[in-house]
Amino acid sequence: MTTTKWMVKNGTFAVLEENRTVLRGYMVVENDRITYLGEEEPIVEEGTEIIDGTHLFFLPGLVNTHGHAAMSLLRGYGDDLALQVWLQEKMWPMEAKFTSDDVYWGTSLSVLEMIKGGTTTFVDMYDHMDQVAKVVQESGMRGVLTRGVIGLCPPEVQQQKLDEAVAFAKDWHGKADGRITTMISPHAPYTCPPDFIEKFVQASHDLNLPLHTHMSETETEVAQNVKDYGLRPVAHLEKLGMFSRPTLLAHAVHLTDEEIEVLAKHQVAVSHNPGSNLKLASGVARVPALLKAGVTVSLGTDGPASNNNLDMFEEMRLAALIHKGVSGDPTAIPASEALRMGTVYGAKSAFLEDIGTLATGMKADMIALNTDQAHFLPRTDYISHAIYSASAKDVEHVWVDGKQVVKNGASLTLDEERIRREAQRAFERLTTL
Amino acid sequence: MTTTKWMVKNGTFAVLEENRTVLRGYMVVENDRITYLGEEEPIVEEGTEIIDGTHLFFLPGLVNTHGHAAMSLLRGYGDDLALQVWLQEKMWPMEAKFTSDDVYWGTSLSVLEMIKGGTTTFVDMYDHMDQVAKVVQESGMRGVLTRGVIGLCPPEVQQQKLDEAVAFAKDWHGKADGRITTMISPHAPYTCPPDFIEKFVQASHDLNLPLHTHMSETETEVAQNVKDYGLRPVAHLEKLGMFSRPTLLAHAVHLTDEEIEVLAKHQVAVSHNPGSNLKLASGVARVPALLKAGVTVSLGTDGPASNNNLDMFEEMRLAALIHKGVSGDPTAIPASEALRMGTVYGAKSAFLEDIGTLATGMKADMIALNTDQAHFLPRTDYISHAIYSASAKDVEHVWVDGKQVVKNGASLTLDEERIRREAQRAFERLTTL
Repeated sequence: MTTTKWMVKNGTFAVLEENRTVLRGYMVVENDRITYLGEEEPIVEEGTEIIDGTHLFFLPGLVNTHGHAAMSLLRGYGDDLALQVWLQEKMWPMEAKFTSDDVYWGTSLSVLEMIKGGTTTFVDMYDHMDQVAKVVQESGMRGVLTRGVIGLCPPEVQQQKLDEAVAFAKDWHGKADGRITTMISPHAPYTCPPDFIEKFVQASHDLNLPLHTHMSETETEVAQNVKDYGLRPVAHLEKLGMFSRPTLLAHAVHLTDEEIEVLAKHQVAVSHNPGSNLKLASGVARVPALLKAGVTVSLGTDGPASNNNLDMFEEMRLAALIHKGVSGDPTAIPASEALRMGTVYGAKSAFLEDIGTLATGMKADMIALNTDQAHFLPRTDYISHAIYSASAKDVEHVWVDGKQVVKNGASLTLDEERIRREAQRAFERLTTL
Repeated sequence: MTTTKWMVKNGTFAVLEENRTVLRGYMVVENDRITYLGEEEPIVEEGTEIIDGTHLFFLPGLVNTHGHAAMSLLRGYGDDLALQVWLQEKMWPMEAKFTSDDVYWGTSLSVLEMIKGGTTTFVDMYDHMDQVAKVVQESGMRGVLTRGVIGLCPPEVQQQKLDEAVAFAKDWHGKADGRITTMISPHAPYTCPPDFIEKFVQASHDLNLPLHTHMSETETEVAQNVKDYGLRPVAHLEKLGMFSRPTLLAHAVHLTDEEIEVLAKHQVAVSHNPGSNLKLASGVARVPALLKAGVTVSLGTDGPASNNNLDMFEEMRLAALIHKGVSGDPTAIPASEALRMGTVYGAKSAFLEDIGTLATGMKADMIALNTDQAHFLPRTDYISHAIYSASAKDVEHVWVDGKQVVKNGASLTLDEERIRREAQRAFERLTTL
């Protein structure tokens, strides 16, 4: 394989180091890795491709650590409803009709939105996951994929679903030049009986893969857990052995101090989904307390039907804003910490070691924002601007594994017009069934 | 004067009527007014300019009801700090150095961001207001302008400032083809002694202009008011006669049930500034209770140094999201109500009768979003998409008074490149003084 090598000249890079958050200078990428990042101009071979970084702000690609991409087909189909009405009357009847074709086009629509908006890695928990994997392959994005299993069914159906989840995780782990990794997912403690959850823990051991589940999204489900099992969800999952394995929990809105300590002790990661938690009125997660306890907290959009967009800049901004407003402390979650939640903590939550940071040796998963715009002025603090002013649509270029996938705001890998048309057609078919 | 007439064909229009929120059809604009809006194609003269609305969603221009536009020069200059540190060490020393030239370029930078992002009317309270008025004139935007006066100074300086505020309000009211209106603004109960506030109430009577002030943004200032005057701010301002005049209050975060009743009784309007209130950790205003009591609640960005952007779509989304999350009620402030807050309630709050709604007879202050994008699909509910998915950068065209001021995302009235350069230069000068 010949080496592909290119260099950014005069760029501004978010490095988030102890002593400096931003570096102005040069970056060299060879194949899928950053091989140089510094202030001094490096010597490169004649003919090396040069990208002028003068009006660009480079960030690590954003990592969306919880979602259900195919649900974009239900965006705007039910909003501003009580949770149970929304689920039982709107979401579940429609989702029951989803074919693998629907999952393919719904996921494509989401991946198109995510990749153009600066998200380079997404965690996805859904059904028909082969289709999701196919979209990851085609798009050039990085995906951490898992078949989420609801266990409210007879034992033989449970086993069949588990087998399917295991087969998917085995088959696809490491595929798409390593851009696909997999996890094992019982859907939630309130949708999976204890003995069924234990089987997922066993599978996670056997396959040496991490676990991902929903936990403590609403107060109701916490109360139900106490009623059913005599334990709050954290103690319940701890007892079932879940935290003996690397685990990523989605939501974790309702936590006691003791539960936070348990999560910290076992190094359990949390995917905070502020947009979805607010929209569904689930509450405000105790993120400052989690971070203080040393828990890795990253950010997720959740499904596009409960958000309703996949703009990770918005999730970073919400994380930086709501915890200040609710706690009364204007220093809670500063801009640099919100950016870490969207990048390096995201990588850690997704159990990926070599993305999430711009540094020599890391994978070149990277985005560039156009700073030649009113809301990026004056040039005071680009980290602040990225968190408090920027949005998905400021993303000009995106690279994954060193390969450019978005250029001047347009996808290089996906047929945008076709995806929009097919997604609309899929939705219309679902409503007429 | 010859009539300028144009028509939108096959457009989708946010009408927010009792029985339908969206209308698909035709709109005719003659000079500054909408003269037809309906499903039937109207007969127009041959040669009438036709705009193809097929992929556009038309909304009333957004109304930003509280801000200090020139403060864009301090965007990102101090973030994530305790309020008093931010004010005393960052904002005030810099603002003290602002010249009228700085106000001109800072306001231009903000107006550029606002107008391209779909805001057609803004309320602005600052100093050097002649410069702000000049920018409104040049940009084609609509401005409701007021010289905000801090009264912590000797009586003769107070009088001089009041005279200045009155002169500005008199001179500019109705200027720029009626696009400029004015108000009278004592800065806040904690920065203006009672007798000084009474002089503003008198001036408001004499000039027949509304009042605008900051109120109850923080708990500290409410406690201080009680300590200084034995009354909470609402009773204090009521006693000073303020609510005998049309009044717009910015913030109103900390209110009792009784205070909400008083505001409703006197038809006082409130500018809710969710982004700023969260970022400065002021708290979460009781917006659902205010709306329930019949108070007109609109939305404002506040100054760009405490937000840090001027995207009114974000304020509408924040209003729709945070009150659900904090109250636990997912039906709180539905999408259509958030859109009303950003449009028709904004117009009412700014005391403008003929903007804020798309209907025959209203002024043609209007924006068009590009719906040919992933995050606007499927075509389920465009009001939902506008609130939960859209951002400033989805705005394709903007008209004020029937005149197009933004076309294909570019300003037709302002020199974008020059404004960016001069704003940066102004900031650099301020830091080296």
